Formats: sequence, structure tokens, C-alpha cells
Amino acid sequence: MSHNPILQNETAPQGASLAWAEVRRHLKLDEHGLIPAIAQQHDSGEVLMMAWMNLESLDETLRTGRVCYWSRSRQRLWRKGEESGQVQQLIEARLDCDGDTLLLLVDQTGPACHTGRRNCFYNAIHDDQVEVISAALIDPATLYRKS
Amino acid sequence: MSHNPILQNETAPQGASLAWAEVRRHLKLDEHGLIPAIAQQHDSGEVLMMAWMNLESLDETLRTGRVCYWSRSRQRLWRKGEESGQVQQLIEARLDCDGDTLLLLVDQTGPACHTGRRNCFYNAIHDDQVEVISAALIDPATLYRKS
Repeated sequence: MSHNPILQNETAPQGASLAWAEVRRHLKLDEHGLIPAIAQQHDSGEVLMMAWMNLESLDETLRTGRVCYWSRSRQRLWRKGEESGQVQQLIEARLDCDGDTLLLLVDQTGPACHTGRRNCFYNAIHDDQVEVISAALIDPATLYRKS
Repeated sequence: MSHNPILQNETAPQGASLAWAEVRRHLKLDEHGLIPAIAQQHDSGEVLMMAWMNLESLDETLRTGRVCYWSRSRQRLWRKGEESGQVQQLIEARLDCDGDTLLLLVDQTGPACHTGRRNCFYNAIHDDQVEVISAALIDPATLYRKS
């Protein structure tokens, strides 16, 4: 923890800055080399999804402005929307206080969720039930059908 | 994956429901028995922080309505605000499509971040710099000083 330069910002005033290259070198990744990334629609504040990044996907996202994750199930780079067309344009990437989580402010084209819903958090725990609280905007069969 | 009942909701219409007890039994926890939990201020949409829960902390949170995490650094239950007084009241807990991430809609008292800032995501990556984009609301020395 003492080598994590992001911790210098804990007591820093608004407007202070550190070199990204230095922070990046000491980024707190998990044992698989990954960091969780929360995607939030930049204007509405809606939390769209959470996925994972490795350094390569983060670098590509910052370079291209189009969000790229690391797919744990497929063990490869996952350029969000590469199959569905539902891409995420990066507005701003933020790191939390201890540098182990990313918040991505994005502009999401269409639904973020593979089910066709706008966001992935549609299962609300209400007492002893888990209730579906939103409907698909698009039939997922259409999303993933190649033309 | 085939034993995860939450997947039944992928194609379910709005209003459909499953028994929480059944979903809970098959919750997709990581190798440490944990699930990431994003805390979002329920009315403003501000993403406050991300932390981790085990089943015990999730059960307590749902039972009491006061958010309790699992502290990975201290390896014990962490009742948010137990030292600082900056508690989180649960408004609604939601699970994502594959049941491996929680979104907690909360009502946060004061700052969520141990630095005294309202939220933990104050480090914005701007080109080659990481810039502090918000100021502390409260001096953290005051937050954690016992009276």
C-alpha cells in the first residue's frame, strides 16, 4: 500500500494532480491482474453495468475513447458492443481513493445489458422475492443476430 | 452457470419474480466468498463507493436496512459508519443479470469516503495526469477522532 502513489491524493486539494504513468505502474490489480470498472451513463447517472479491465484494455479505452473490457469468461479483450453494436463512448475515467476500482462515465448506445435491457441491475430484492423491475428495449435475439 | 437461478430472469418480463432464498443459495461469489457491491445515492444517482460483501454482511444489510460490508483489509464485518458515523441506509438492493454484482441504492449520511469527500471517485484521469476533482466536506481527522 505504501507504494501506491494514488494515496498521495487522499489529502490533496481539489485541482492537485499526479502523473498517470506513475499511478498506472502501481495500479492495485487483483490476483488475476484485473480491476473492476463500473460504467455509469454520464448524463442520467444510471449505473449501467460492472465489468473488469486489465491494463491492456484500460490503455486501449483511454487511447481510443471506446470502452474495452477484459472478458473473464472468454479470457480475451472485449470491445463492448463488438457483436451487438451497443458501444460505450468514454467521457471520463475515474479512480477511487485507494486505486482499486474504476468508475467510467460513458455514453451508452442502446441497451448496456446482453438481455436487451438498458442496464444490468434489473433484479431487485424485495423482501423474500427477487423481482424483475425493467423490460428489454430490444429483443436480444436481434442484438446478437448477424446481418 | 446452469445452476444459477437468477439466469431465469434474463428473459422474464417486468414484474416476474423468484424466491430470494433460492437465488441467495446460488449467488455467484468469488473465490473468497465475496461479491462486489456498488453504493449509489438513491436520489442524486451519485456513485459513492464500491466495497465487498459476504453472505453474512448481505443478510445483515437486508435484515437491518443499514449497510454492512466485509472489510478485506481487516477481515471482519464492517458496518459502514461504525467509526465515522457516516452510515448508509439501504433503500433497495439489486443484482445484475448474471448475479455476480450488487447495486445498493442508499441514503448516505455525510461523506461516503474516508478522506472526507462525498464519494470515493475523485481521481479523474485527464490525458497524462490524475487530477483531484473534489474537496473534502469534513476534515477526516474529525471523522475518525473519538469523542
